[in-house]
Amino acid sequence: MSLLLIATKYPAFAGDTEYDLVVLGGGSGGLAAAKEAAGLGAKVAVLDYVTPTPLGTKWGLGGTCVNVGCIPKKLMHQAALLGEAIHDSRSYGWGLPPPEDIKHNWELLRDAVQNHIKSVNWVTRVELRDRKVEYINGLGKFKDNHTIQTTTKQGEKLLTSKYILIAVGGRPDYPNIPGAVEYGITSDDIFTLEKAPGKTLIVGAGYIGLECAGFLNGLGYDATVMVRSVPLREFDRQMGDLVTASLLEKGVKFLHKCLPKSIEKQADGKLLVSWTDGSETFSDTFDTVLFAIGRRAATKEMLLENAGVKTEGDQGKINCVNEQTNVPNIFAVGDVLHERPELTPVAIHAGKLLSRRLFGNSSIFMDYDNVATTVFTPLEYGCVGLSEERAIEKYGEDKLEVYHAFYKPTEFFIPQRSIVHCYLKVVALRADDQKILGMHFLGPQAGEIIQGFASAIKCNFTMNILKNTVGIHPTTAEEFTRVNITKRSGLDPNPQACCS
Amino acid sequence: MSLLLIATKYPAFAGDTEYDLVVLGGGSGGLAAAKEAAGLGAKVAVLDYVTPTPLGTKWGLGGTCVNVGCIPKKLMHQAALLGEAIHDSRSYGWGLPPPEDIKHNWELLRDAVQNHIKSVNWVTRVELRDRKVEYINGLGKFKDNHTIQTTTKQGEKLLTSKYILIAVGGRPDYPNIPGAVEYGITSDDIFTLEKAPGKTLIVGAGYIGLECAGFLNGLGYDATVMVRSVPLREFDRQMGDLVTASLLEKGVKFLHKCLPKSIEKQADGKLLVSWTDGSETFSDTFDTVLFAIGRRAATKEMLLENAGVKTEGDQGKINCVNEQTNVPNIFAVGDVLHERPELTPVAIHAGKLLSRRLFGNSSIFMDYDNVATTVFTPLEYGCVGLSEERAIEKYGEDKLEVYHAFYKPTEFFIPQRSIVHCYLKVVALRADDQKILGMHFLGPQAGEIIQGFASAIKCNFTMNILKNTVGIHPTTAEEFTRVNITKRSGLDPNPQACCS
Repeated sequence: MSLLLIATKYPAFAGDTEYDLVVLGGGSGGLAAAKEAAGLGAKVAVLDYVTPTPLGTKWGLGGTCVNVGCIPKKLMHQAALLGEAIHDSRSYGWGLPPPEDIKHNWELLRDAVQNHIKSVNWVTRVELRDRKVEYINGLGKFKDNHTIQTTTKQGEKLLTSKYILIAVGGRPDYPNIPGAVEYGITSDDIFTLEKAPGKTLIVGAGYIGLECAGFLNGLGYDATVMVRSVPLREFDRQMGDLVTASLLEKGVKFLHKCLPKSIEKQADGKLLVSWTDGSETFSDTFDTVLFAIGRRAATKEMLLENAGVKTEGDQGKINCVNEQTNVPNIFAVGDVLHERPELTPVAIHAGKLLSRRLFGNSSIFMDYDNVATTVFTPLEYGCVGLSEERAIEKYGEDKLEVYHAFYKPTEFFIPQRSIVHCYLKVVALRADDQKILGMHFLGPQAGEIIQGFASAIKCNFTMNILKNTVGIHPTTAEEFTRVNITKRSGLDPNPQACCS
Repeated sequence: MSLLLIATKYPAFAGDTEYDLVVLGGGSGGLAAAKEAAGLGAKVAVLDYVTPTPLGTKWGLGGTCVNVGCIPKKLMHQAALLGEAIHDSRSYGWGLPPPEDIKHNWELLRDAVQNHIKSVNWVTRVELRDRKVEYINGLGKFKDNHTIQTTTKQGEKLLTSKYILIAVGGRPDYPNIPGAVEYGITSDDIFTLEKAPGKTLIVGAGYIGLECAGFLNGLGYDATVMVRSVPLREFDRQMGDLVTASLLEKGVKFLHKCLPKSIEKQADGKLLVSWTDGSETFSDTFDTVLFAIGRRAATKEMLLENAGVKTEGDQGKINCVNEQTNVPNIFAVGDVLHERPELTPVAIHAGKLLSRRLFGNSSIFMDYDNVATTVFTPLEYGCVGLSEERAIEKYGEDKLEVYHAFYKPTEFFIPQRSIVHCYLKVVALRADDQKILGMHFLGPQAGEIIQGFASAIKCNFTMNILKNTVGIHPTTAEEFTRVNITKRSGLDPNPQACCS
């Protein structure tokens, strides 16, 4: 029981409860909400439990991002980029052995990544303790809308709470084909693989599939992506195509408009995969098959029905209004939310704001618009705001002006790196000062470059201001300040001279 | 003679002239102005001539930035960063020889850099031809305020023009001590040095000195910086100190509060340098002594007095109002301007806007405020807007809130890179939504990171908006969106957990 003031806009609970907030799921969103709430004086418990993958992979506190998402992905991406850097280094004067003599050691990278993750798990746990958030290593199930039941090493436990936050995130899907679950892996397994992945088939061309293909190829493994519809379907079409083309150029193979049919394990241990393009059937052998076909919310085992919480669609997701479920004292943040960006900082921000509303008299709501994101393929793709298609849909082509440019990063010249996919575009309204609706950048350091512009877009950014922003020379970010060719003009968007 | 409409706000010239615009200096600002003017229909000539350095170094069309500034500097910086990347690569699993077996080849890098510069010189020249700008390889001298005299291979030539633009830029200074000019070099020479620089003394701790020290040290040369007053004197004090500390940590040595007294060449070819700290005299031998003590405008040989153009102070700079000198039909852009940022994109932007005012009926003036810049030391320092000192001076400490944070780049963990100097701060007004006055970032990719925020600052950026900008995870740019500790609070600005 707490003496805390509870914001009146949320339902007060007449009865006594042990906790002010019980958080189900110790990932980015849940932990951020828990720490914020505890900082505001609430009594908080976080339940975290990882159901092992079919392969048996499990992990510690911190959720997808820390354990099987952003962090290991970015580190493996960095390892792949360093492979390119080594290649560049020779042309910049460094005396290195010829590229064919430089090999990558999977086990060494995997251990380095896992050691880092373990240290983050530890820091996360210590931080919860410091902030007086109780951590329970158990799967939480609803008994009713104020009661959570869980089983830990110490036995069964019931927790009562004024508010409950569902932040259990999602887990990768498997296709319903023979051999998928027995022989396939997902992003939940790739970062802990015992042996080097070898020749890998990646099924699915969303950002997770393309990122995995990118770093595997960069580390020297044969990587093939099987695409059902179009790569990066939820992103700007032209940019998605350019990302695909940049991967293809680096050596990633693509099987377009194909669906897997079966996986069999051969006597030699290799995996025989059959697939179809709708008319013909093909097959090939791989060392590893990674499914990146989508993710579903991990809400199935929670007995949501006992609390009356409704889910939406077939992915177990929860439809919320301002993070509030259909049950007024039960909330949700992060990847369990229906039709919200599945991104760590979104979950964190929504979690913090929610706790401030619940326990801090705040009335600030999460703004899910204009959230920037980056696809960490070897050539990175960063964007914020609307895709060209979405802008056309919303405003009509006549009302838009799309500025675009190819550009040449200064550092690419000496190693003669390909520049053909270094491209950016800005989608703006045509009228007046040309309010900017979306920005898209394909090239090195896209994540670092887009972040600041994401802030600008939150301040009524216009083409007029962009064109009058003085560049920082020589950077690639400055290319945005130099953009002046519109698609409508039909002029060549190829590079101008570099410094005048 | 041209039939062009001349904006009435600038003085019409009654007589006939051969050109609408003669530009003195084919650097970034001059070329940008020339191309813009020609695009608007003006008849334009650009005169460019490089007076060789005492060592005999000269270069082609394009000015300081292309030939002896941003471009070679950034490429050598990149070479040094690649040295760090090679070191990182081993911990990320790449099988490389031990660091002590990897040597850098100066000649190979210098040639690669010079070849790139030659190609830019060429592209620049072709572009002028395409845009119908006449290029004259001669030093321009004023005969009167409408007439330029020059000597080319073809002999003497007189050019008359309605408007004249002075864009001759600047050149490095030498100290007035024995041996300086005979044995010293400057940034005008370093990028073409015949032999590897070896043990180098860099005199001067402005951004040019520190950048040179950074890349020389990174390439494996012993580098010592002699500092007269404070490093990066014109930047935020705390950030300047952190940049210095980061260089020191990487192996650069510093001689604080010292002034050089003499350079002698020894029998073994080494340079014996004497210096003083004001009381004692010291000496040591170096292979190379590089002066980076300041730059003066290259206006001395132009016979400005024949046109009546006045200069300001002892650096030959020109005081302008909206790029207009005291002689109404004579203008100036770039590094010759008194009290304006000496930055390529500033010169370009000012040059373009000027030509649009002269020939395009524009009335838009250059805004020299909130120009972002980056110091490309190994750990880069990017900033935009006011330093903390300048903000205090302007608004008073009570009216300000300074947010700050140390942070840990994800990629630094595996190679156990030092994070002690990874730091950022945001200087904001204290009232209301906390308008942001300045942003400062020390860390990898600072230039890429600051650019977008420079646009945001042009749109009335506030702390409220920054805090509600959702981060891109994992990037270092997102650390700005996480900043929440104020200096006033006295709380520890050390890192939070990484992903919640």
